[in-house]
Amino acid sequence: MDILSEQKCCGGVQGFYAHESDICGCVMKFALFLPQKPNAPLLTWLSGLTCTQETFAIKAGAQRIAAELGIAILAPDTSPRGLGLPGEDDDWDFGTGAGFYLDATRSPWDKNYRMQSYIVEELSRLVAANFSVDKERQGIFGHSMGGHGALSLHLKNPQIYRSVSAFAPIVAPMQCPWGEKALSGYLGDDRDTWRMYDSCELVRAQPSKASMLVDQGDKDQFLEEQLKPHLLEQACRESGQALNLRTHSGYDHSYYFIQTFIEDHLHHHAKALAV
Amino acid sequence: MDILSEQKCCGGVQGFYAHESDICGCVMKFALFLPQKPNAPLLTWLSGLTCTQETFAIKAGAQRIAAELGIAILAPDTSPRGLGLPGEDDDWDFGTGAGFYLDATRSPWDKNYRMQSYIVEELSRLVAANFSVDKERQGIFGHSMGGHGALSLHLKNPQIYRSVSAFAPIVAPMQCPWGEKALSGYLGDDRDTWRMYDSCELVRAQPSKASMLVDQGDKDQFLEEQLKPHLLEQACRESGQALNLRTHSGYDHSYYFIQTFIEDHLHHHAKALAV
Repeated sequence: MDILSEQKCCGGVQGFYAHESDICGCVMKFALFLPQKPNAPLLTWLSGLTCTQETFAIKAGAQRIAAELGIAILAPDTSPRGLGLPGEDDDWDFGTGAGFYLDATRSPWDKNYRMQSYIVEELSRLVAANFSVDKERQGIFGHSMGGHGALSLHLKNPQIYRSVSAFAPIVAPMQCPWGEKALSGYLGDDRDTWRMYDSCELVRAQPSKASMLVDQGDKDQFLEEQLKPHLLEQACRESGQALNLRTHSGYDHSYYFIQTFIEDHLHHHAKALAV
Repeated sequence: MDILSEQKCCGGVQGFYAHESDICGCVMKFALFLPQKPNAPLLTWLSGLTCTQETFAIKAGAQRIAAELGIAILAPDTSPRGLGLPGEDDDWDFGTGAGFYLDATRSPWDKNYRMQSYIVEELSRLVAANFSVDKERQGIFGHSMGGHGALSLHLKNPQIYRSVSAFAPIVAPMQCPWGEKALSGYLGDDRDTWRMYDSCELVRAQPSKASMLVDQGDKDQFLEEQLKPHLLEQACRESGQALNLRTHSGYDHSYYFIQTFIEDHLHHHAKALAV
């Protein structure tokens, strides 16, 4: 693991690191905010389309509260990069910056685009081996595509990610253009194989004991076509999954929206992880 | 004045605007965070070398506290841009992104590089005419080159900018490479004309009644060669200027440092402006 940079922030350290990923078969970068307090619970933040491991650290303003609560925040990149795969950089919503937190099965993506396994298995192990974090107290949250990642990775691994929240998540990738493009491109046309990446399907099949916190702005430009939080609301109601879906008047899809409510999310996780 | 974007943030609005500046003779852009509360005191933030009107709004995490305190924050760009002047884009520390908050007298800079008059005279008037801010309660703060701008514009205009603070400011541009390059390039070789832009000179000539808050990280890569806070400390001591200079162990020159202490600065201004 290489240290790209480490900078003191709010009494802790905001670091950026690179390592050779076995699962992705390439160099992957990640950000880690480590509070002063040792053995910190570990929150994984998953970013949205086009973002990198830097976006959250720069734009969310989360470090001050994370430092106060003694929580570490891990932010991986949103996909492998620079592999030279055909079409990799053609679209902003597929390939580079758009890994969708799944394990691709379709060539040529299947060798490297394995963000699900990378995040759940490889990255948290690497972080726990190198930093003073408590692997037994992990939570997950994210934005947009990363909100999809947070909800779905929690639902599939509730024993690993004990707390979950999301900002403006894609809740039903099987029912929106971004999701359909990604799922067909990475997995092929058999829609049955898509279900394990659709949070509405997952919550119906295997609701978790956690309470989900989901924030959504009503001026979000992607609300109607891509995000559709009412589908999650319905699935949770039908399956008995606890959900706190909050709609915020006037807010859009940006980090100005995230910055506004990030404190609530960190407190939500701190409470669930009994910090 | 054109609205480039307006986004809800922390109950207020983070906006970006453009206008034809009479004083700079070109289109200038600025950022304004406006809290929900009307008639807000107006804090002007001056950014450092290479920054734009966007940097502070994205990186400082100031909006939440500004919203709580009911303070508006105005962040101008750091220079005119795109004029086609010879050498304008050759260096990162002169020309574009490096206006140094002065009024140039040397050709070809003298027609447009007039950031001092632009900020003190034109921009705050424009903002007061278009938004619900209280022009009678203004403060100023900034970072690095912008810390120089904040200290010097306050000292020259204590009746306009009633409160002042700075992060890692250039306190004596006459005694550091960045300052000497800028002052000679924009003003010519007569060092007597430089004095009105050197905060250490100004504080000796005309100390203000305000108390200056200055934060400095001891791991700042520019500390020894460019920033030299001990020169300000000495000048303040000799002239009776109130100064609260705080040195922070382990912090560098970045916005991670600014983010850490921004809350203290906003409270400092709120108190001085009797918010």
